[in-house]
Amino acid sequence: MARVSQEHLDARRRQILDGAALCFARNGFHATSMQDVLKEVGLSAGAVYRYFSGKGELIRAIVTEVLDDVRSVYEEAGRQTPPPPPYELIDKVLRDVHGLRPGLREGGVPVFARLVIQVWTETLRDPELAVIIQDGFANVTAAWVRIVEGYQRAGMMNADADPEAVARVLVAAAQGFLTQQALFDRVPVESLESGLRGLMSMGEVSR
Amino acid sequence: MARVSQEHLDARRRQILDGAALCFARNGFHATSMQDVLKEVGLSAGAVYRYFSGKGELIRAIVTEVLDDVRSVYEEAGRQTPPPPPYELIDKVLRDVHGLRPGLREGGVPVFARLVIQVWTETLRDPELAVIIQDGFANVTAAWVRIVEGYQRAGMMNADADPEAVARVLVAAAQGFLTQQALFDRVPVESLESGLRGLMSMGEVSR
Repeated sequence: MARVSQEHLDARRRQILDGAALCFARNGFHATSMQDVLKEVGLSAGAVYRYFSGKGELIRAIVTEVLDDVRSVYEEAGRQTPPPPPYELIDKVLRDVHGLRPGLREGGVPVFARLVIQVWTETLRDPELAVIIQDGFANVTAAWVRIVEGYQRAGMMNADADPEAVARVLVAAAQGFLTQQALFDRVPVESLESGLRGLMSMGEVSR
Repeated sequence: MARVSQEHLDARRRQILDGAALCFARNGFHATSMQDVLKEVGLSAGAVYRYFSGKGELIRAIVTEVLDDVRSVYEEAGRQTPPPPPYELIDKVLRDVHGLRPGLREGGVPVFARLVIQVWTETLRDPELAVIIQDGFANVTAAWVRIVEGYQRAGMMNADADPEAVARVLVAAAQGFLTQQALFDRVPVESLESGLRGLMSMGEVSR
């Protein structure tokens, strides 16, 4: 058997993951067969099964990779003093995730958001995937907590605010925005920034 | 055939919709058969098909009803001067929706959030449902725009903020919060309020 370089192995792995992600975004996990994935990536069953044992392993690899990317953007932001404002960070994460997966397009349109909402649904039925999502959410939230603490140290946010609760809301805003991108055409990422800035301008409203 | 009262018809319709919603929240739309729905509601096929032609009509009726409930809460809020702050409104909507559907519980736990994320996924495959969701989203966003304009008139929010963008972010926060409730155990609704208050305390951050 000819020796193959690590780059070749990595590129092949990337090709399989992107092809599988496209299939899943298009038709969902249940309606996608391994035959569909093989057809999409244009490889033989032998070539694909050398990397992944089946649909479950593909899904988990795709989700793990995306969550790692998202976390690393937020962790880097948390090391800045002061951290960039929330709308810049969420905008950066959404752009980075699309930028890192140039293959994840259908007719030129990114399918990342469609993939994400299908993953959420699948999580309700796949306990292994649920654990990955829960760990990923905990890690991303923890990274946001550092950032929020940075805002508070810099006097940019009320020191009484609960960093964990603020982190959850910022993750929720990004999740909800992805939902809107998946369900409705042309939701510009600028509206997320503009909306968050407007909301932040409300100040602490007395009850 | 005995005459039946309107209350009886309404109660029966409610029973069918809640039973179907429980089945869908539990197993998703595709894995749920009409047989499962009949078993859940404890009625004959004849009794159920008098009200609904099948799964598609059930899904659309459930979604239409929930979106109407959500919209009416926000529309009422938009008529107040000034409108209640965002965290109170989102909190009220989530509580009202749970309160209006006491049957939507499994082992005492509300399943509304699980139902919602399954509806999103189904929307990708069902064009009729997609239209209902798009109309519902447009109506809820429009109701939020009135509220945001109320904040601006009352001097509670920067007058330069784009009401449509702020409305979208508030809808996104509620959608993301529901996602977290569906995917993770015990996400207290209080953390949404606390987090939004913290975020609002950031003020308009200069770039």
